[in-house]
Amino acid sequence: MASEFDLIARYFAPLAGPEGLGLKDDAALLSPPVGKSLVFTTDANVAGVHFLADEAPGVIARRLLRTNLSDLAAKGAVPLGYLLTLALPPNIDEVWISTFAEGLALDQAEYNIALYGGDTVSTSGPLMASITAIGSVDKMIRRDGAHVGDDVYVTGTIGDAGLGLSIAQGGLPNLPASQRGFLLERFRLPSPRVAFGVALARAEVATAAADVSDGLIADSAHIAKASEVRIAIGLVAFGDDYEIVFSAPPSAQLAIAAIAAETGTKVTLIGHVEAGAPGVQVLDAAGMPIDLPREGYVHR
Amino acid sequence: MASEFDLIARYFAPLAGPEGLGLKDDAALLSPPVGKSLVFTTDANVAGVHFLADEAPGVIARRLLRTNLSDLAAKGAVPLGYLLTLALPPNIDEVWISTFAEGLALDQAEYNIALYGGDTVSTSGPLMASITAIGSVDKMIRRDGAHVGDDVYVTGTIGDAGLGLSIAQGGLPNLPASQRGFLLERFRLPSPRVAFGVALARAEVATAAADVSDGLIADSAHIAKASEVRIAIGLVAFGDDYEIVFSAPPSAQLAIAAIAAETGTKVTLIGHVEAGAPGVQVLDAAGMPIDLPREGYVHR
Repeated sequence: MASEFDLIARYFAPLAGPEGLGLKDDAALLSPPVGKSLVFTTDANVAGVHFLADEAPGVIARRLLRTNLSDLAAKGAVPLGYLLTLALPPNIDEVWISTFAEGLALDQAEYNIALYGGDTVSTSGPLMASITAIGSVDKMIRRDGAHVGDDVYVTGTIGDAGLGLSIAQGGLPNLPASQRGFLLERFRLPSPRVAFGVALARAEVATAAADVSDGLIADSAHIAKASEVRIAIGLVAFGDDYEIVFSAPPSAQLAIAAIAAETGTKVTLIGHVEAGAPGVQVLDAAGMPIDLPREGYVHR
Repeated sequence: MASEFDLIARYFAPLAGPEGLGLKDDAALLSPPVGKSLVFTTDANVAGVHFLADEAPGVIARRLLRTNLSDLAAKGAVPLGYLLTLALPPNIDEVWISTFAEGLALDQAEYNIALYGGDTVSTSGPLMASITAIGSVDKMIRRDGAHVGDDVYVTGTIGDAGLGLSIAQGGLPNLPASQRGFLLERFRLPSPRVAFGVALARAEVATAAADVSDGLIADSAHIAKASEVRIAIGLVAFGDDYEIVFSAPPSAQLAIAAIAAETGTKVTLIGHVEAGAPGVQVLDAAGMPIDLPREGYVHR
């Protein structure tokens, strides 16, 4: 394989924005948008843990980028760029690298972002890729602002990715092929709610938000604990959907419906914020509390 | 071992600055210093590649942080904070994590920085740690500004870390113990030239700079190629010293001597920028070109 420097020049330098200085410097240089705050998030994926070891390199690249963009989206931040760390096992060849870079290029165009910099190292273990993403925002939607009396909403359809993971692992053999394919794609390549999150932050109607990456219950619990409130929801699911769970006062219902329509996003009212011990309570159809075996699906 | 959330709350949340929001949110939030640019760099270290597999966790933490701070220092940036990614093999226990975090705490105090966020994942391979560091600067010292006629300088003593690595691998058995210990420490725990780099950028006298992480010749070559000049130097060494190599016009000599004295940094004039094919030419004591077998030491 070509040297680290040659690989960077060939496959990654073309992905660099002006901030990346052609990936020829020690560092990237950003003049922050005047008057904005910057939002940083970092997410790492390991082969065999976060994606199947034989997954297509372009999908690995896009999935990792999108998990980071999902965090920015939940905060209402406009994505700007990212830094990439790759730890490559010896069996990775130049075709793999070039296909990985093509995946990044596709999503850079889709989300209007650029590569700022990175590092490539070798490992004797499984492939690992890590991204630090940077976005800008006027007023970030934090986790700790949910108030008693707020409604709780979630974007999209929760649970698809969990079913997709089951299918990827050989489960649900009796589902029709078209449905299997749809759910598998929802697991392989999430669609972060960037337009919705940015519009939600601009409208200043959400009191708290989190991205649904550990599971709806677990991520609702993050909001509940940070906000020191009880969240009661009437929908059970788990998974990896990279949707946004958020709270807003009842007075915001019309504004949220407008944002949903404007960004083409399904939004469902799933629960309410209550006083009580911080945490999440799931209710059945009759409004009675259900005991859950665990709060969500936790990657390690 | 405790859950990822418990480990973060116990060992990493105490390291978080206000930007880290107690590590309880999806992302970190930074209000950039008004009128400054931000500088980003990322560096990853893998057990058995960048440090010895049985290295002390606190030293692994500090070394990784310092390699990133060295990149910021070479750009003249004041370090602000960092995001940390850890990929942990199954044999890592809570004592390891707590000692690693103690190392970070020591260097956070030494360099006046804070943890902004991170991600922890598990791997079946060797331990890997990656940091994205963020600094601020009025005017970054880039790699591509060296001019024909400039002098070329290096801070500190080049080559110590290379000798230290040899000792760590069982080499140089005949050196006195005190010297072995000194060189080993230079390899294990570099001292990034933060104060010097920041003063150099503020004085606006350097035309180009790079941190010496691939070796003096290789990193000088990065400046030469980015600046499209020939650099002739009269000193050969290699290694991992995390010093700064930089160019400045002869008119800057007094200013550089003052910065060196003010920051207690040894600075050596090692060469000159010339016209010619981009690259580095090493000269012997008589000023005659020497052929080198390779440009530097390249980690992978």
